[in-house]
Parts: sequence; C-alpha cells; structure tokens
Amino acid sequence: MSNAILRVRCADRTGIIAALSDFVFRHGGNILDLDQHSEQESGRFFMRLVWAVDDFNLDADGIRLGLEVLARGFGLDWELNFDHVRDRVAIFCSKQPHCLYDLLLRQRLGELAGDIVLVISNHPDARPAAEYFGLPFVVVPVTPETKAEAETRQQELLKEYGINLVVLARYMQILSPTFIEQWSGRVINIHHSFLPAFAGARPYHQAQARGVKLIGATAHYATADLDEGPIIEQDVTRVTHRDTVEDMVRKGRDLERQVLARAVRLHLDRRVLIEGKRTIVFG
Amino acid sequence: MSNAILRVRCADRTGIIAALSDFVFRHGGNILDLDQHSEQESGRFFMRLVWAVDDFNLDADGIRLGLEVLARGFGLDWELNFDHVRDRVAIFCSKQPHCLYDLLLRQRLGELAGDIVLVISNHPDARPAAEYFGLPFVVVPVTPETKAEAETRQQELLKEYGINLVVLARYMQILSPTFIEQWSGRVINIHHSFLPAFAGARPYHQAQARGVKLIGATAHYATADLDEGPIIEQDVTRVTHRDTVEDMVRKGRDLERQVLARAVRLHLDRRVLIEGKRTIVFG
Amino acid sequence: MSNAILRVRCADRTGIIAALSDFVFRHGGNILDLDQHSEQESGRFFMRLVWAVDDFNLDADGIRLGLEVLARGFGLDWELNFDHVRDRVAIFCSKQPHCLYDLLLRQRLGELAGDIVLVISNHPDARPAAEYFGLPFVVVPVTPETKAEAETRQQELLKEYGINLVVLARYMQILSPTFIEQWSGRVINIHHSFLPAFAGARPYHQAQARGVKLIGATAHYATADLDEGPIIEQDVTRVTHRDTVEDMVRKGRDLERQVLARAVRLHLDRRVLIEGKRTIVFG
Amino acid sequence: MSNAILRVRCADRTGIIAALSDFVFRHGGNILDLDQHSEQESGRFFMRLVWAVDDFNLDADGIRLGLEVLARGFGLDWELNFDHVRDRVAIFCSKQPHCLYDLLLRQRLGELAGDIVLVISNHPDARPAAEYFGLPFVVVPVTPETKAEAETRQQELLKEYGINLVVLARYMQILSPTFIEQWSGRVINIHHSFLPAFAGARPYHQAQARGVKLIGATAHYATADLDEGPIIEQDVTRVTHRDTVEDMVRKGRDLERQVLARAVRLHLDRRVLIEGKRTIVFG
Repeated sequence: MSNAILRVRCADRTGIIAALSDFVFRHGGNILDLDQHSEQESGRFFMRLVWAVDDFNLDADGIRLGLEVLARGFGLDWELNFDHVRDRVAIFCSKQPHCLYDLLLRQRLGELAGDIVLVISNHPDARPAAEYFGLPFVVVPVTPETKAEAETRQQELLKEYGINLVVLARYMQILSPTFIEQWSGRVINIHHSFLPAFAGARPYHQAQARGVKLIGATAHYATADLDEGPIIEQDVTRVTHRDTVEDMVRKGRDLERQVLARAVRLHLDRRVLIEGKRTIVFG
Repeated sequence: MSNAILRVRCADRTGIIAALSDFVFRHGGNILDLDQHSEQESGRFFMRLVWAVDDFNLDADGIRLGLEVLARGFGLDWELNFDHVRDRVAIFCSKQPHCLYDLLLRQRLGELAGDIVLVISNHPDARPAAEYFGLPFVVVPVTPETKAEAETRQQELLKEYGINLVVLARYMQILSPTFIEQWSGRVINIHHSFLPAFAGARPYHQAQARGVKLIGATAHYATADLDEGPIIEQDVTRVTHRDTVEDMVRKGRDLERQVLARAVRLHLDRRVLIEGKRTIVFG
Repeated sequence: MSNAILRVRCADRTGIIAALSDFVFRHGGNILDLDQHSEQESGRFFMRLVWAVDDFNLDADGIRLGLEVLARGFGLDWELNFDHVRDRVAIFCSKQPHCLYDLLLRQRLGELAGDIVLVISNHPDARPAAEYFGLPFVVVPVTPETKAEAETRQQELLKEYGINLVVLARYMQILSPTFIEQWSGRVINIHHSFLPAFAGARPYHQAQARGVKLIGATAHYATADLDEGPIIEQDVTRVTHRDTVEDMVRKGRDLERQVLARAVRLHLDRRVLIEGKRTIVFG
Repeated sequence: MSNAILRVRCADRTGIIAALSDFVFRHGGNILDLDQHSEQESGRFFMRLVWAVDDFNLDADGIRLGLEVLARGFGLDWELNFDHVRDRVAIFCSKQPHCLYDLLLRQRLGELAGDIVLVISNHPDARPAAEYFGLPFVVVPVTPETKAEAETRQQELLKEYGINLVVLARYMQILSPTFIEQWSGRVINIHHSFLPAFAGARPYHQAQARGVKLIGATAHYATADLDEGPIIEQDVTRVTHRDTVEDMVRKGRDLERQVLARAVRLHLDRRVLIEGKRTIVFG
C-alpha cells in the first residue's frame, strides 16, 4: 500500500481542512492520519495529512496540480511526498564512528524510511564500516586551503548519487554558508548540549568543572548560524561526580546516537516542518 | 473565546473528515486543532476536533442535531463538549492526603479545565485541607455492613453537586460493580505499578526484596475488574538499594501525585477516548 | 536511633578512610553508610560517612575533638551533623505559591529531615497558606530604596528563628552580595533552564520561538554571581508545538516544584558537599 | 595504573570497614572509591572498595591470603578482581542482531572493561557481523532432540575460550537448569517488560491492545526460574496510539540494546553484587 504525505503551513483561515479533506475524498483517497494545529499567538496553521493513494483517481502530477489550485486559493506553503519514494541519504563523518554505525545498523534492521546510499568522510578511518554495510565510501580531505574544492567535490557526489538528505554524523568540518544555503532544511547535525550552556573549548571538561547533573544532545537542521538551526530533537542523561570526563563523553556519545537517529527518522517520515528558526514535529 | 471539542470513534471509512470539517466550515467555525488517526490493524477511526464557536451560526442544540445527522450516515460514535462548560469534579479520598492536596493546589493555580467542588472521604482527616481550599467535605463512613448504604449516600451527593467526574485520590475502598457501571468512564483511579508486577500484600516490600530498579504509577478508569481499567497515563522513577521501603513509598507517592494530576488534566481537556479496554490519548 | 553524618573533603592521601573508620570503630560506632570517591584528575577526596551513635562512648564534643585531631593530621575539611539535630528552614517567597505549597505539603507528610519554621515574603499573598500549615508569616516589603533595610529585617528574623537554611521558593528579589556571602552554602534557589540558554526577558517566549523540545529547572546554591552557583539538582520535561507559552510555564512550574524539593531534601539529608563552583551529591 | 576491586557482603557488624581499610593502608594502597551500605531491615552489609595496587606490597596471592584471614574473622563473603584482568565474554545470539551489534560496536569504541572473544548462535545469520568485528563465530544448532548435546558443545567452547561471562543477546533458546546452575551469576539476559505484565504469547500485541503508555526492558542474571533472576538494570520508553505493534517492537529493540549494554558494563566494572533474588548495584 502506498501513501501520500502532505505537509502544509500557512496563515490560518477557515476552510483549509475542509477543502483539503474534500479533495482527498472526492478523488477516492482515505485519510489515515491527520495532525493539525493552529497557533493562536502567531496565527499560523500547521498540518500533516496522510492518505492511501492505491485507489486514488489522480496520479502524482494530478495531485500536485490539484494541490496547486488549492494552494493559490488558500495561500498554502505545502510539500507532498509519497512513502514509496524514499529519500536518498548521504552520511558525512570524520573519525568518530558511533553515529555512523548506529545509522547503518538501523538501516540494516529496516528501521529507516529512506536509504543511506553514500558515506563521505574527510578521513579514511570509517571505510571498513561503510564497506561492511555495502556502501560506497569516499574520502574528501579538507584543509583550510582546499575547503572550497572539497565542497565542490562533495556537491558533485551528492548530485551523482541523487542525494536528498545529508546527515552530519559527527562530521568535524564546518560547511560553508553557500553549501548550507543550497541544502537548506536538508542537512541534519548533532551536537552536545548543556545546562548551563558552555562557550569555548572542551565543553565536557567545563561541564564537569561546573558539576552539572544532566548532559544533553540536540539534533537540528544546519544553518549558516552554527548550532543555531531549527531543533528537531533533544534529550538528556544523568551524570554524577563519579563520572569522569571520559564517562561523560561516553554517555554523551550514547545520547548523540539516539537523538540523531530519532531526528533522522522523523525527517524521513516527513514528520518535521521548518517554520523560521524552529520546527513543528508531528509526533 | 469559546471552543467546541468533538471526539469521534467509529469504523474507518472514506469521507468522514471531509464531512465533519465541511460541517464546521459551512457554519462559520474555524478548526483550531485536529488530531486524527486510523488504525490499520483494527480498522478503527479516532479523532479529536476543536473549533472556535464564537461566530458559529448554530447553537449547541443545532450542532448536536447536525452531528447526529452525520453520525447516522457514517456510523459515528461521538461526544461533544464546549470548553466553557466545565466538568464538576468530586474527589474521593481516605487518610493519605498527598493526591488530594496536589489536585487542590492545581485548582488554586488555575491549572485545571474543570472545577473540584466536593470532597468525600471515609475518614475525617482531610477535612481541614478541603475547608482551607474552600470546599465542602463530607464524611461517608464505610464498613462491610454499611457499604451499600454508603454508596447510596455517595450517589446522592454526586447528584446533588452535579458531579461529572469522580477522582479516586488514594481512596482505599473498593466501589461496587453497580457504582462503577453507573459511572463508567467517569471514575479515575491511581495505583502503583511494578516491573515485574507483584500480586498480594505489601508490594513495596516485595519490590525491594526483588531489587527492582524502577517503580511506577498508573492512572486508569475504574472498572469492575479491579486495576484493569483503561490506562490513561503512566510513569516510573528510579530506585536503588539505598532506598528503604519508606523511601520507595515516598517516591511512589510523588509519582502518584504527578500521574494522577496528568490523567485528570487529560480527561478534563477532553483528550481521552475510551476504546474497549484501552484509551486513545490525544497528546 | 541517632546517627552522626560526617562529610569530608580534602586533598587525597592514603590512610584517611582507615583513620576515620578506625576512630568510629574504637569508640563503639557502627558505620551504616559510607560513600567515598577520590577524583583522579583533581586529586581531591570526597566522603560522606554515617554511623550509629547510640552506643558511642564519645558525646558530640568528644567526637568533634577527635575529628579535629584527625583533621590536623590529614588536612581534612569536615562537617559533622547529627540526624536528630534538624535544620531550621525559612522559606522566602513572592506571589507565586507553587514551590511554597509543595514544600509545606512535604513537611506535613513528614518527608523532610528538617523543619520549616518561618515564611518570609515581600507580598502578603501567601499568608493564608503559611497560616494554614501553622507557620509564622512575615511580610518584608522590598523596594529599591528599602532593600538594605529589608535585608536587615530579614537577617534579624533569621537570627530570631534560629534559621540554618534559606530556601528561595520563587522569591523574585535579588539578595545583596553581602547577604549571600553571609549565608554562603545555606541559600538554595530554583530557576528554569533551557537548551540552548536564553539571555534576557521572557525566556519561555524565547524557548517557544526557538521550538525547544525540552524545558528544564535547576536548583543551586545562591552566589553573588546570579544563577551561577553550585548546582544541586536538575531535571527536564518534554514540550511540543501544541504547548502554548502558558502550558510551558505550567510544566516549568511542576518541574520547579520537584527539583527544588529534591534539592532541599538532599541538603537536609547532608548529602551535598560544595566544592568550589560545583557540588558533590552523595545519592 | 592498576586497581583492585573488592566486593563484600555479609551480616553487618562493627569494625569491618576499619579492618579492611586498615589492611589496604598498611600494605601501601590508596583507596580510590568506597561505596558501602548497611541495610537496617535485613542487617546485611554491602561494600565495593577500589584501591590502587601499583605500590602495594602484596601481590594478588598475598592480598587474597590477607582477605581470607579477615573474612574468617568477620564472616565476609567476598570477591576480589583486578581491573587489568579483564573478563572474557561470549555472546549467545539467534537471528535478531541488534543487541549483538550494539555490544560489538561498544567493544570497538573501547567502552567495555572486558573482552568479547566469542559469538555463539543457533543460526548462521550473524556470522558476517561477528567476522567483521574480527570475532570467531560458532553455529551450535539447537533442536529439542539435540539440546543436551548442543549445551555440551557450548560448554566446551566456553571452556576452550576461557569465558567468564555469557551474554544472552536475544538468544531465543532456553538454557537447561544444569547449564544455568553451573554459570550462576555469570549469564546476563535481556527481556521486555510491561506495566502491567502480560503472560503468554505476543506481548507487544497484548500491550497495544491494553493501550499501555510505557514499554520497558529488564536485564537480569539468568536463573532456572525463567525471567525471574536478579535484576541488574531496567528502563522504559513512551508509546502512544500512533505506534503500531511494529513501532513498539522497534522501540523495545532500542531499549533492549541500551539496557543490556548498561547491565554488561555494570557487571564488567564489578559494580553488581548478587544477594539472593536481587542485586545491589554500586552506581
């Protein structure tokens, strides 16, 4: 069975749901899941709508045309996907392999609604892992001098492999604003988070020196404003004075794996809507 | 601003959302929140729909009539509420006051979408608390011999005070199947839960003897089948070997307060739908 | 049964535990709980030691004398308490009563190893609550002009009531560095925490605008450097786009209650050791 | 640096800590971590003691001799380990590879204080995974008829590889009471847990039918009484009506990975003490 997944955001006004659900109904679709919320403060409308298209009397182009008509009438900002059209995912990584492994394992377990088809790294270390899981692995070295060149190569690879989503799985290089701009909303990053936040180097050392009781991780869309992109998912774990910096790093690593994997799942399931500096996540 | 809240459950079929959202639209309503899910395995349809009725051109009776027509066509099982019509809540308690206090405090903080208007207890202990919070407090003693009589008195009180919801806030008496039947879906209970479950007396002692690492609490609708009613909310907290039975009881008490309060909130916000032995909670 | 609770911190060296446990043994004490950790990175030694003193052949003065001898030999920084000598606690609050109520309820439930004996507020609002729980309630108004005077009055009250611990239960005034200095390590504060942190006004509005998925609360000792004191306890709760700012405030309030109550318990149980800008919490 | 780790349990009496810490001190050891608790209800004494042995003037045999003397005097039940003597671990698995992978990944990341040196399975499926991580993989098929024979073969392998710990990483065969008895306290198992508990087949289907809001996982030592062995670690995760049985299985799988890995770490770090039907975990 194949489903269409429609995400809509727009200024709220009456009749949007009626019009969209009527459109689905009249063309023979059955709504399986509808999650809608109008925000009183901002006057914004957010919706995720899933319907079965097996007996639909419009093909993909027909649906898009129909939606375009509704969009003009209601001022909708919309995106349509079909769950049989899976995202093609590239993972960028450096030396730390934990997030890479975790994602590859989940792919093997059939947990992801997309396909990881490429691994790019600035170091050769992860090659055996990628190859074990049957994936092409390309080393694109990055130095301050060759950064532009490296990004050109990365862009070529992303194009060549038909990539829709880039996952920065502890990729320790900063992508240029140009790259980020071009892939806006399609690059997911993971970083550690602390209460309070720590500026500067060696955050785990700072966290221990401040005796924090929780450490966290945040997955977000990459934006030019580093680590300030729309947050997709967050979580925390408890630490005590018995945890060395090394223990905290290990616990943080565990958290990063889980939080990044959840964020990637949410994105691939078309459950995330970017709205300015934040996301709406349809849980 | 006043809102209508409609909950629907029925066998899934096409066109239900279109029909309902069209009904709202045509009569001048704006949908604020719509949360719908069709369960593939069971073929069941669940929905919660909230719309602003300030400019609606039907009054409550008119809405009910309109919904009844749709219900007949689509076989809907539905319930309609308005958020300005607040549930009237009675709390039943015994000697332990923690859940009672917590609910009364939340009422004072304006956190509840209903009104606690009556406290009934089989002991006089909680009288000062109820009176401090300005509530009538009625002692209805219960003994094995007087149980039927006591329930008659309780029923009278519930009728007299126009009660819609009974919260068993650590009420240590078992209500009769007749009572439960009559108040089906309108009595919320709280009890502790363990992994593994423990039959018999003194569960915290058993939990400690088994060295469990988590203790839990479950809020559910009361059914004749004791502690087996549809679950509304659950949570757990961590314990260690340093926790005495007394510590575990205290931690369990904290959990009971929070879980019961969350369940009551969910019910009063019309977020819970009972479906056989389980609930659908629109989060 | 009465217990002695000894907390020690010092530079690590061999023989400290042997000397202390030998001291306890030779004078007829039985160790009930010993939690010690030497930090490799910092070379610091931390310990909490509890022993039964019912058959001890030294009285409190004798114990202190004996410990002083050991302290000189080993360079110990130590603090001794007896669990039958309970801290006397003053609560400072303003208009928001949730943390005050929660602590008073816990006192009534017998959960605290200290005695709340005084409530001070800059507003009269909480008077009925304090009086219901049988506590003296003193209004000490604070204006920019009368601040010094107000603190003098507060200090007199703290002295008059023999207070050992001040709990700022959403007290919305900033205490002067002089006050804080004098009560160093004996003033517990609670504030909300976010990932990322938000500077400036209306943090919940900022948190919502950034679409955070978690909101948190942190209890810490007050220091002159506002909100930067040693952290005692932290926790977080989940929020979604369906949570209005008002919902987030309510969830934050729930969290504040729990986190502050846990921090106060830990302090009263003599489980917290302040070490520079952080705490060691013996869980 | 090398450390000795001593775990002790016995009937509580005065002087045990003094005697043991004195023993460590007199022979030139420095205590790094001491976690002790005497249980008032049961009169039992539990302790974990870690000291640096680099400058100790006794070798391993000498230490054991010294401890034996103390043990006779105080009636101690003790176990001594050195952190440079690492456990040799065998993983038993069947077709589901998630727990196996997770442990192998952690081994590669250097997270475990022991060495996984062997993988045994009743199916060939996991061979590539084991071999990728450089581990011998042995298929020992099990049928009702060949079970005894299979266990003989397994025992030979465990002996041949010098195994100290067996981890049942979703191994879907039941080990015989004889096997379990022989490996008592050295076989860790993982299974799902629910509130309430569900007897019989297809627990996830039952959990969904009951609308549980939490699903859990429990890691425990295997005992003849199936799934009733001493609990090492537990955790839960939240589910909603939007989670299909398949989603719940996936979430349960995630939880199993984490809970099993934590339990294995705790065991390898010598943090677990078995006391009858429960464990004491020194966190």
